[in-house]
Amino acid sequence: MLNFEFWNPTKILFGKGQIASISREIPAGTRVLVTYGGGSIRSNGVYDQVMAALKHCAVLEFGGIQPNPEYRTLMEAVRLARAEKAEFLLAVGGGSVLDGTKFIAAAIPFEGEPWDIVEKGAEVKSAVPLGSVLTLPATGSEANPYAVISRSERGEKLAFSSRHVYPKFSVLDPETTFTLPPRQVANGIVDAYVHVMEQYLTFPAHAELNDRFAESILSTLIETGPKTLADPKDYDARATFVWTATMALNGLIGCGVPQDWATHMIGHELTALYGIDHARTLAVVAPHLYRVMKRDKAAKLLQYGERVWGIREGTEEERIEAAIRRTEEFFESLGVPTRLARYEGVKPETPKLVAERLEKRGMAKLGERGAVGPAAVEEILARSLAA
Amino acid sequence: MLNFEFWNPTKILFGKGQIASISREIPAGTRVLVTYGGGSIRSNGVYDQVMAALKHCAVLEFGGIQPNPEYRTLMEAVRLARAEKAEFLLAVGGGSVLDGTKFIAAAIPFEGEPWDIVEKGAEVKSAVPLGSVLTLPATGSEANPYAVISRSERGEKLAFSSRHVYPKFSVLDPETTFTLPPRQVANGIVDAYVHVMEQYLTFPAHAELNDRFAESILSTLIETGPKTLADPKDYDARATFVWTATMALNGLIGCGVPQDWATHMIGHELTALYGIDHARTLAVVAPHLYRVMKRDKAAKLLQYGERVWGIREGTEEERIEAAIRRTEEFFESLGVPTRLARYEGVKPETPKLVAERLEKRGMAKLGERGAVGPAAVEEILARSLAA
Repeated sequence: MLNFEFWNPTKILFGKGQIASISREIPAGTRVLVTYGGGSIRSNGVYDQVMAALKHCAVLEFGGIQPNPEYRTLMEAVRLARAEKAEFLLAVGGGSVLDGTKFIAAAIPFEGEPWDIVEKGAEVKSAVPLGSVLTLPATGSEANPYAVISRSERGEKLAFSSRHVYPKFSVLDPETTFTLPPRQVANGIVDAYVHVMEQYLTFPAHAELNDRFAESILSTLIETGPKTLADPKDYDARATFVWTATMALNGLIGCGVPQDWATHMIGHELTALYGIDHARTLAVVAPHLYRVMKRDKAAKLLQYGERVWGIREGTEEERIEAAIRRTEEFFESLGVPTRLARYEGVKPETPKLVAERLEKRGMAKLGERGAVGPAAVEEILARSLAA
Repeated sequence: MLNFEFWNPTKILFGKGQIASISREIPAGTRVLVTYGGGSIRSNGVYDQVMAALKHCAVLEFGGIQPNPEYRTLMEAVRLARAEKAEFLLAVGGGSVLDGTKFIAAAIPFEGEPWDIVEKGAEVKSAVPLGSVLTLPATGSEANPYAVISRSERGEKLAFSSRHVYPKFSVLDPETTFTLPPRQVANGIVDAYVHVMEQYLTFPAHAELNDRFAESILSTLIETGPKTLADPKDYDARATFVWTATMALNGLIGCGVPQDWATHMIGHELTALYGIDHARTLAVVAPHLYRVMKRDKAAKLLQYGERVWGIREGTEEERIEAAIRRTEEFFESLGVPTRLARYEGVKPETPKLVAERLEKRGMAKLGERGAVGPAAVEEILARSLAA
């Protein structure tokens, strides 16, 4: 097992009616800026619940944070928060609203150009405290220090991380997700699944417990994903999915193990170039990456196939291919394509273009061993474009 | 899934050489009281590593905290800490040192008689901050808010819990545990195993992920326990065991599920009466409790048998008995007896005596449904004394 540090201070308030608990988490009189997205929280009752829980606070609002949150939009919120002296940010929405709010929180006290935080990795020395009400289970942003921000006029989508932007608390009420469109639920399942794979499908590191935890999340997603898609109001299935997505990326299963994240880095470029949903970029990259990197990942692919999919027969080569195929079939069964060829407007030169963009960002050696270089990136995307 | 709140702010510093990291976690000049037990940390090098990491602090020491830490001893430390104005407590040792130090931390600023914290559940409004260097994996005290304190002259062993006594950080260096006596390692395996069972072996609550996490810990203990007992210096096996014991009682697997804890409550009385090691009391109670309560626990006993032990054949009755027997065989294989009859000096009237003591403490309705009453307690202990 590798050495590790694990610290996750976010308080999780999970279950029916938990939005009301916010009133205990924010001191009376606090100037709270509530951030949200396109306004679906107004139609599904979440907005009203949040406002009722904030009666003891001075509330400001900032709506309109888009999927793949835009730097320009977020900077408007920063100006508002600075002008109004917001003391606490409450993000109400999915991963994009949460990620965007983390950026706002870090940008408010930042001296200089806040875009440097994502582009140049400028140090975040402090942040305005934030909490969240999660309405779209997927990214794990509700209990981690990560955020991904876009600047579409430059074709950029970049991540940052800071211990200062862990939410102080996150409310996860599965009932608030009942009205999500099926496409977003399917995306969330794939997103959570690939989060686990990035921390699991590398090489064995004698981290038996965390391997089993990772396999537990994968098996639960396979079992619960189709169930919660078929019956969105099945509380227990949805609750299991919500909790699973949080556990997929709260840092726990990444303890003591090598990690990959190449699928995400390649995927971010596809979103930046073509606006493809984040989870959908993962689904068109991951299976092909596993095939291209199967020598490096052989031992874990075999373990994954056996423990998660029950694949015990055939040569090693056959079992590896079967494990990857089952993964593809699972994503496709959720309505999420596993071929880049299925998206219109993707240029034939995309593989080379993405490889070059990553190289330019200093990401020429992705993967758990730095072996996912430009040639591998090109091959992965060429395969995904071919079939 | 039941509603839950999960918050665990302890930072885990895990791996070889991590004691040195303490220097980053405690500000320079802090007045640190280092607490420990019988002095084994002096012979195994841990003491020297800790002192080297605390060079930037003003260090005080308090040794001699015994297994089942004694109120009287801990109050000596409280007086020392108050007199010397200790600002931080660093517990170096196993669960007893950690539990004792949590009590010291809560008692220092407590107004009134600190024993009220455990006996009367008096509110802990604050505590001196504490950290830990764990040298005995077992209790999970390194990452939870619980502590159990004894007052042997009154035959008492009682627990308390407070959010203020979560360690700020805990160092888990598996190498510091290489020199532990096999008996303590075996005890630790059983302790961690039963911690999981108390949060798992109840009734199904549609908490699929946490069930799988619990089963992951049990399977890992079954796999790694004998390995780490046989070869204490196998780093990866020991590291896996250490991490497993932490995850068994850091609150995570208890999220959203019913819990039992009757085995622990009955066990504490046996330690208070006869001084039997904590883990060993659990091993003489748990299997008999599962048998006596098998109607209530049938669904989970069957799930446990199938997923953890691979038991798929026979009637339900047979599968349940097989699952309990495999549990007993596992404990016995570690050298931990599963019959109270194996301990000398245990009086024949013990079942009745323990039932009465629990009743007097307001614990007449233990278990996930409150169904472990005096009659069940008597039957459980009578069976354990009989065989």
